[in-house]
Formats: sequence, C-alpha cells, structure tokens
Amino acid sequence: MLDETAQGVFTIAVTPFLSDGALDWDSIDRMVDFYIEKGATGLTILGMMGEAGKLMAQESIAVVKRVTARSTVPIVVGVSAPGFAAMKTLSDAAMELGAAGLMVAPPGSLKTDDQIVAYYHNTAEVLGDAPFVLQDFPLVTNVVIPTKVILQVVEDCPTCVMLKHEDWPGLEKISALRAASDAGARRISILCGNGGLYLLEEMLRGADGAMTGFAYPEMMAQVVAALRGGDLDRARDIFDAYMPMVRYEAQPGLGLAIRKYTLAQRGVIAHDTVRKPGTVLSAASKAEVNALAARQSVKLKSLGL
Amino acid sequence: MLDETAQGVFTIAVTPFLSDGALDWDSIDRMVDFYIEKGATGLTILGMMGEAGKLMAQESIAVVKRVTARSTVPIVVGVSAPGFAAMKTLSDAAMELGAAGLMVAPPGSLKTDDQIVAYYHNTAEVLGDAPFVLQDFPLVTNVVIPTKVILQVVEDCPTCVMLKHEDWPGLEKISALRAASDAGARRISILCGNGGLYLLEEMLRGADGAMTGFAYPEMMAQVVAALRGGDLDRARDIFDAYMPMVRYEAQPGLGLAIRKYTLAQRGVIAHDTVRKPGTVLSAASKAEVNALAARQSVKLKSLGL
Amino acid sequence: MLDETAQGVFTIAVTPFLSDGALDWDSIDRMVDFYIEKGATGLTILGMMGEAGKLMAQESIAVVKRVTARSTVPIVVGVSAPGFAAMKTLSDAAMELGAAGLMVAPPGSLKTDDQIVAYYHNTAEVLGDAPFVLQDFPLVTNVVIPTKVILQVVEDCPTCVMLKHEDWPGLEKISALRAASDAGARRISILCGNGGLYLLEEMLRGADGAMTGFAYPEMMAQVVAALRGGDLDRARDIFDAYMPMVRYEAQPGLGLAIRKYTLAQRGVIAHDTVRKPGTVLSAASKAEVNALAARQSVKLKSLGL
Amino acid sequence: MLDETAQGVFTIAVTPFLSDGALDWDSIDRMVDFYIEKGATGLTILGMMGEAGKLMAQESIAVVKRVTARSTVPIVVGVSAPGFAAMKTLSDAAMELGAAGLMVAPPGSLKTDDQIVAYYHNTAEVLGDAPFVLQDFPLVTNVVIPTKVILQVVEDCPTCVMLKHEDWPGLEKISALRAASDAGARRISILCGNGGLYLLEEMLRGADGAMTGFAYPEMMAQVVAALRGGDLDRARDIFDAYMPMVRYEAQPGLGLAIRKYTLAQRGVIAHDTVRKPGTVLSAASKAEVNALAARQSVKLKSLGL
Repeated sequence: MLDETAQGVFTIAVTPFLSDGALDWDSIDRMVDFYIEKGATGLTILGMMGEAGKLMAQESIAVVKRVTARSTVPIVVGVSAPGFAAMKTLSDAAMELGAAGLMVAPPGSLKTDDQIVAYYHNTAEVLGDAPFVLQDFPLVTNVVIPTKVILQVVEDCPTCVMLKHEDWPGLEKISALRAASDAGARRISILCGNGGLYLLEEMLRGADGAMTGFAYPEMMAQVVAALRGGDLDRARDIFDAYMPMVRYEAQPGLGLAIRKYTLAQRGVIAHDTVRKPGTVLSAASKAEVNALAARQSVKLKSLGL
Repeated sequence: MLDETAQGVFTIAVTPFLSDGALDWDSIDRMVDFYIEKGATGLTILGMMGEAGKLMAQESIAVVKRVTARSTVPIVVGVSAPGFAAMKTLSDAAMELGAAGLMVAPPGSLKTDDQIVAYYHNTAEVLGDAPFVLQDFPLVTNVVIPTKVILQVVEDCPTCVMLKHEDWPGLEKISALRAASDAGARRISILCGNGGLYLLEEMLRGADGAMTGFAYPEMMAQVVAALRGGDLDRARDIFDAYMPMVRYEAQPGLGLAIRKYTLAQRGVIAHDTVRKPGTVLSAASKAEVNALAARQSVKLKSLGL
Repeated sequence: MLDETAQGVFTIAVTPFLSDGALDWDSIDRMVDFYIEKGATGLTILGMMGEAGKLMAQESIAVVKRVTARSTVPIVVGVSAPGFAAMKTLSDAAMELGAAGLMVAPPGSLKTDDQIVAYYHNTAEVLGDAPFVLQDFPLVTNVVIPTKVILQVVEDCPTCVMLKHEDWPGLEKISALRAASDAGARRISILCGNGGLYLLEEMLRGADGAMTGFAYPEMMAQVVAALRGGDLDRARDIFDAYMPMVRYEAQPGLGLAIRKYTLAQRGVIAHDTVRKPGTVLSAASKAEVNALAARQSVKLKSLGL
Repeated sequence: MLDETAQGVFTIAVTPFLSDGALDWDSIDRMVDFYIEKGATGLTILGMMGEAGKLMAQESIAVVKRVTARSTVPIVVGVSAPGFAAMKTLSDAAMELGAAGLMVAPPGSLKTDDQIVAYYHNTAEVLGDAPFVLQDFPLVTNVVIPTKVILQVVEDCPTCVMLKHEDWPGLEKISALRAASDAGARRISILCGNGGLYLLEEMLRGADGAMTGFAYPEMMAQVVAALRGGDLDRARDIFDAYMPMVRYEAQPGLGLAIRKYTLAQRGVIAHDTVRKPGTVLSAASKAEVNALAARQSVKLKSLGL
C-alpha cells in the first residue's frame, strides 16, 4: 500500500494502442518492464497522460488488471471522474486488483478554498481505506490549490499520503509544505510532475522524487540518485543533458504525442497511436525530436551514460 | 427517429434518486408519464440536468432502457463524453434500446471555429447513422459557437438535425440561422433551453419549441400552443405568470435542486436527492420557492389554467 | 461620506455619448436629474456599465467633476484598474472632487482566498481614508469571493463600508453575511446588482437596497419603499410588472445597449451610442424592447403607477 | 518605421522603478544602452513585462519619450487597452514621439474567429497609418488565434507588419504562416516570444528573430547570428548553455521578478522593484538564479563567450 514514505520515480504511464485504437496488450507488458528497468519505483496509470478520459469503463479496469499483474512495483491508478459514483466503481475495482493507491485531480468547477477542501473530504469518504494522491495541476484543471488547503486536506484526511505536485510556478509551495511538516504537520510524500522541467530545484526544495511521464524516465532516476548520493554537480550535468528534450516535450497538448513517438522509436511500444481527439505529430516535429535525441545521446555518452 | 421537423417541447428530464442516491425506478416511470401528460412531444435524458456525469456507465444504459420502454414520445439521449470511445459505447446502446436521437455538447478544450467543426465531424462519424442534436450552451461549456460554425456542421453532417439553443444572449443567432435556411441552407429544428427564460422571444425569432427542464413543463407547451394558434397576448399572459419562477430557477448551480424540489412537491418524484457533488437547497430557498408557487397558482387561476 | 448605513437605490449610471462617441455633457446633467427624480439615494458612476474602461484618464475625471457638481445625492466612483498607480490617481481626484466613496472589483488574476484578501488590503492602503465598496460580480470578473473572505476584508479594512452584491446565485451569501453581523461582525451596507432580477428576495434576505442600472430605476425605489412599508404583496406586484423587462436586460453584453436605448426612448439621454468595442442593438431587439415597454406600461397603470 | 522586413532581436524591456516605485530614469537610459550593446535590433516597451497596466497614463507617455530620445534602434510601444479611446491617446502620442510601431494584444472577451478579425479591423482603423504588431499570447490573453485569422488580418490590414509569436505550442503555426506567404500571402515579420524557450526551432521553422525579455539578450542575438551564418551546431551550443536559465525564467508570474533581479545583478538597473500587485522573489529563488548564473557562466567560457 502506498504511504507517506514513497519516493523515487513513479513514472506516469501512457496507454498503448494498436494502430486502430484498440488496447495493445503486448506493448503494455513491454512498457511496464521498460519503466521498471529504467528505475521506476512505482507506476501511475490512467492519468491525464494515460488518456483515461478516452477509455471505456471496462477498458480502464482491464488496463489496471494487466498492469498490476505484470508490475513488481506499486501501481497508482488515476480515478478522477465528474461524479463520485464512477470514481467509486473504478477505485474499488482497482484496489481489489492490487493497486497500491489512487490519484484524484479536482474538477474545474471548484472555485474557493472551502470548496476544494470539501471535495477532498468527499473523495476520502468515497475511497474508504485506500490511500490517495492529491493531484495539483492548475494549468490543466484551472483549480489553484493554496498551500493551506493542501495542509487542511492532509490534516483532515489520513488517507491522503502524497501530493502530485505540478503547480507552476511551484517551488515555493514545496518549501512551504516542508516548513509546515517541520513545524508539526503530517509529512506526506511529494512527487513532482511538469515533465521534470524543474526536477532539480524541486528536489533541493524538499520533494521526494518525480511522478511524470518524460519519455526518458532514466533521467529522473539518475538525477534523484545523484542528489541522494550528494553529487549535485553530477545531478546538474545529467539534468542539463536532457533539458532540451524535457523542454520540447513540455509543449501543452503535444507532449503526449511526442512521448508516444519517442517510446515507439525506443522500441517500447509498437505504435504511437493517440486516440481521438488528440494531436498527430507532424513530420517537422518528428524531425525536431530526432535531432534533439541524437544530440542528447552524444551528451550522455560524454557523461559516461 | 429524430429529424429536422421536430417541434414542441422536449422536456429535459431529471434523474430521480432514492434518498441513499440509488436510482429510483418508480419515480422514473412517474416522471415520464408526468412530462408526457403535461404536453411533452419528446424527452431528453442524461443531459447536464440529468446528472449524467455522476452516473456509472451501466446506470446510464439502465436509465435509457427504462425510459425508452415507458415513453410514448421520442427520447433524446445525452452522450457527451471526454472521449469518443465512451461516447460510442453509450450511443450504440441507446440507439439499440430505441432512442430517437443523441445530444452532444462540445468539450471545453475547443477554442477555435475549425476545432469545433472538426469535433462535430468526428462526432458524426462516431455516431454513424444516428441523428444528433448539437448542444450550444457556452455559459456551462465555455465554448462559443458562432452561427457560421453551426451552419458548417449542418452542411457537412446530414445527421445533425437539431440545435439545442442556449447561447446567452442568443436571439440574434436564431434570426441568423433562420435567415440562412431561408437562403438555402438545410433547415434544422431549433429547440431552446435556458430554462425557458426567453422562450417567447425565441419562438417569435423562429425557434420550433423548447428543450429545457423548467419544473412546470406545461408552461412551455401552453406558450408554444398559444403562439402556434396565433394568440400572442395569451402566450405573453401565460409566460409572464410563470416568469418569477423561471427566473428563480435560472440561478446557476441551484436550478437542478430547485427543480427536483418542485417535482417532489408536485408528487412526481419521491425524493429531491441530488448526487454529490451537488447543491442542497436551504430552508430559506424552499420557502422562496413555495411563495413563488403559491402566487403563481393564483395568477394561473385568473388565466383559467 | 459613504458609510455602513447607506441604503435605498444607488443607480449605476451609464456614460452618455454623442453620436460621434464624444462625451455628452447635457445628457449627463439630464441623467443625474432623472435618476434622482426617480428615487435614487445615490449614484454610482464609472462602473462596468459606465464603460469606464473605454474612457481616457482625463475623461474619467471630467465625468466625476460634472456629476458631483450636479448631484444632490452621494456619488460612488468606480476606480477598478489593472494597477494601483492608476487606481490612486483616479481615486484621489474623485475624492477631491467630492465623491462620497469608491468602488473596486477584483482583477481576474486572483485565484485563492488569501490572494483576494491581500488585494483588498492593498486597495484599502491605496485609497487611504476614502470609504470603499467591494464589488462582488463573479460572472464578469471570474473571481469567486467566499463569504468568509468578505468578512475578513470587513474585519481588516475599516474603510470597506459596502458590498455591491452580484454573485449569482447569491441569496445564501446575504443570509450568511447578516448572520455574521448578528453574531458580532461589523455590519456593512449590502446593495444588490444583477439588474434587479432577484431584488425582492435579496431585500427579504437582509439587503439594504439596490445598486444596479435597470433603465426604470423607479422600480427599485418602489419595491424598496413597499418592503420598508411592510407591504410585501404590493412589492411583489410592482416587481412582477417590471420583471419581463428586467429579464430582457439581463442578457450579458446586451444589457448596456438595451439600457441606453431605453434611456434615449425615455428622453433622458440624447443618443444611445455605445463606444467600441460594444454591441449595437438590432431592429428586432428594439422591437422586442418596445413590445415589453408597452405591456409594462399597461400593467403599471393597473397598479396605479 | 517598422515594416515587414524587421528581424533580429527586439528585446522586451522592463520598466525600471526606484525602490519606492517611482520611475527610475537613469536606469531606463542604462537599460536602453545595455540592450543595444547586447545586440538588440529594436526594443519593445510598455508590454506586459513592462508592467504597462500599472503605469498612469502620463507615466506611459513619459517612458516613451525617454526611450525614443535615447535609443538608436526602432521602438515598438505596447498600446493594448480595454477601450479604443485610451489606445488612440497613447498610440498617437507614441508615434508623435518617434516610435517605429505599436503592439496590440487581443482583449480576453474575444471568443470567435470573426470577433478577433473585427477587433483588429477596429484596431487598424484607430491606429491610422502607424504600423502595428499583432501579439499572439494565448497563455496570458486566453484568446486562441488560428493561423487563418492571422492571415485574414494580414490580408485586410496593410499596417499589420509583424506577428509577436508566443502561442504555445506554436511551431506548426510558424510553418503554416510561411507556407501561406510562399503561396502568395503577404509575408510579415515573425518575432518570437515565450522567453526564447523554443527560439532555435522557431528560427528553423521560418521566424525572423526574437521579441522577448530574457535577461541575457545576447543569447538571442548570438543564436540568431549563428543560424544566419549557417552554423547550426554553434547555435545549439549557445542555446543549450542558456537553457537552464531560460527555463527558470519561464515560470509564469515569476519571470518578471527574475528578470529584474538578474538585470540588477548585472548592473543594468539600480533596483529590482516590481510594482504592486506583483511577485517578490524569495531568498531561495534568488539563490537558484545565482546557481544557474554561475554554471551558465562556466559553460559560456567553454564556448569562448
């Protein structure tokens, strides 16, 4: 079961499809193996990047079943939904199938501090004993969650064990949360998103690792390891070597297509299919990714990686 | 099957729940009978007011089954979904179960004219032969659909047979659409929403009727009938008698709770339960509804209704 | 000077222009006289409806000068601005010229409770001794202000003496604020907006009057007077007689054009010019206004008005 | 006068303030000299980064006067305003004082293609003969401008000579605009924003340079020069050396504070004061900037810069 001590890299997994849009089970297995081999300490499935909203209810459950059966690391399942009935159905099924925890982003209708707190009270009640991750991603959800609201949820809901941090800018929020736990608040795990674009600074501010879908997940594992080993220069060298690609992936709406293209190029998934509505990568974009990958590869060799 | 000649009143149905939140099948039956008795020429289920987003996938299908089995008028089923896979699952099931047509609102991610057109191209392809209603409700969807985009969809997608009109302000849009069909564009049915707040002017601008959930659906039927009978003064008298209540229901986020309360008061549904997350009506609000209903009743009597 | 005891009707004034868009000084004078004659206990100028954003800085000051010189009732001046420098320039000038108070709406960039409180702390500091009105209008500002945030501002800023209430729905907020002042919070004046669409219920919940721009301001004065006189039925009769027009004016973006058209029809202002960017009323809309006005006039006669 | 052949680097200038918030004229002069010395081929003042909304009307004109008097390169003045009266006042004054052109971002109220086109028709009329830059920055303005709308404005408004490109993602838009001009549309200048985060790819797609406020403007000049000289590898080396800092500056809302801090550290401006409402940089953030600057300096030395 997921708890407040979780750390390292929880890779946000894509959902691989065949070229006709059907689920690609073989690629799912290969992807799970790949992420773990590249250093994942956990996996997160059915998040925004997992195209959760485009799956049918029974497909979502089938994906959870396949991944939990294959994985040797804990699985977090995204269960955000417009209503609590659908959230409960999926979350009960996921925990039954062996998920370690659940992740919930706030719906865009929440406008005030108290509304957000109340929403997570309801969420915690619906999820029962299952530990959950609060996803804080205002750029996409349009819900700005102040630090004090997160602390209120942490205080009120013992099953909230982790923050998926991707507020932007968000560095001060990490510092504030850590100051609060130093002062006595329950300390939860903070894993950071945003494709890893601020991972180095986030770790130095007190994050426990990354939860994001950068298509070279080894970067996150290596940066986290170097920092834990106390080698800040090494961490910066690795981080900077990948940064042009991290930045390229950060283009909103394009990121998923870029990641699927890269994973297909790396032989992890068989097709880079994105379900409609979704973005198709242009030839020019693919050439840009290729140019960045080639250059990245040279830099990594010079670092002995 | 729904087509461009549809007119009159398609009542937007609530989804009745027991006090524990489970579906209330007896109330569903009573509600279907009630709407038809009060003059509905069609029913629309699983719309926003039907709390569609709060139902589990299998619940949605069960509701369609129950309503289509009971109803003697055509049923339109709301199938808006974040992805086309879920939309297809529900729409195929609904048509199989005897629905007359489907309704689709645009997702909030659409920002430009071409994106909206492309979305409805995809929608039409996914829905196949089934006729569909384009729902134009910017206050809730945040998607503004210009008249020319609607006309493009009408031109490109022969299965688009109706506009659920609830742009606000929206009177000029009706005039522009009718001018376009007078000039040769395919003429589709226009049924108006917004709780009926502008029904009289909408009809005079060329709408074919109402598709909305005002808890006194007889008002819509009576106004439409009076106008069709050429008695504008009578139409205005009836319209004005109900207006304080229409206006009270128009409060965003509160409307559904008010309607369920009124339907329960009228003996149509057994409980006014709204699933979470949702609004609970205060005692003060209930008293306001009661005061308006009492006064409305007096005015209607003076009109011989 | 404006204070917490303000009540009655503060009419939101339009800014009259000549047909070429220049300020129309004669119409301004006539308008001030008209509003007062129709029962205004105060006037609010340079609000959103006053096209404040479309005036040059020196024009704004000239309007304040003209209106304060003419008026025999207190003048509130809207001073909302993207920055505090411009706010200070206008507010200092307005108070110097004899304004009774200032009104400030929050900028759309505010997302959390604390950001809103901080913004009004800054505002109060910038405005110095001048009393101010907090404008709460989420439909336009996109800033939702919870009751507890208003109470915090009231507690922290002694110069906040009035709420311009136009949250929608907003009735519970009035009840909550009055419960808070009954329990010891400082009681400020609450004047309500939204074109008067909920004025009757708002007064019964504890509001002190209206601050809105309905083109028949006598309605607000009469309803408030009837309620203060304890004659609820009379208040409802008057309110209902005007409601079709109030509702018609409530169309967002169109309201201002409708009001200027009506004021021109009533002989108050010489032209119904709206500065660009703005809406031009169609012939069909003008005909609808005329039809509503004619019917309203008949109803008022039957009420002896 | 600005025209379609503009290229290179138009630095977006900050507006320097003394520690009490007053305009800092000496720093303005130093800043103009610094930007030009670092390779600016033009300057853009009173943009969003220039805190334009926080200046009083007369301050804006005084800044234009000071900068145009000092500069040896063309000056573009941001004149975005809620209304055309204020836009005209400032733009007439700016052109009179020797500005080379004006820049206009769309107001957030524009929702459809035709509304955007109409707004720029009005803008062009208001600006008269003065050449103008269309600012395309959806992340801040919330207005998504499709390529075909830009092309329509270019066709209809001969005084539109430049696009400030900062749609995100925006690379395909550059390709599409260049394909259109290759096919016969008028070719306008495209200068790119977003702090330079995609400058390399943007240039390769057909942009003419940068218009952004990165605090090391020499980066932009050097990258553009290397690309014009045909040395792609050199361009990438320089670009990558600055990328950790570009990325750090890209934090929304924080970017301006970081840039002012850096410019103060570099001795260009005397104070890093940001007018309220604005962000104050924490000690931790300053330390992060310092660490990035130190590392950047080492990398640049290894490149002989």
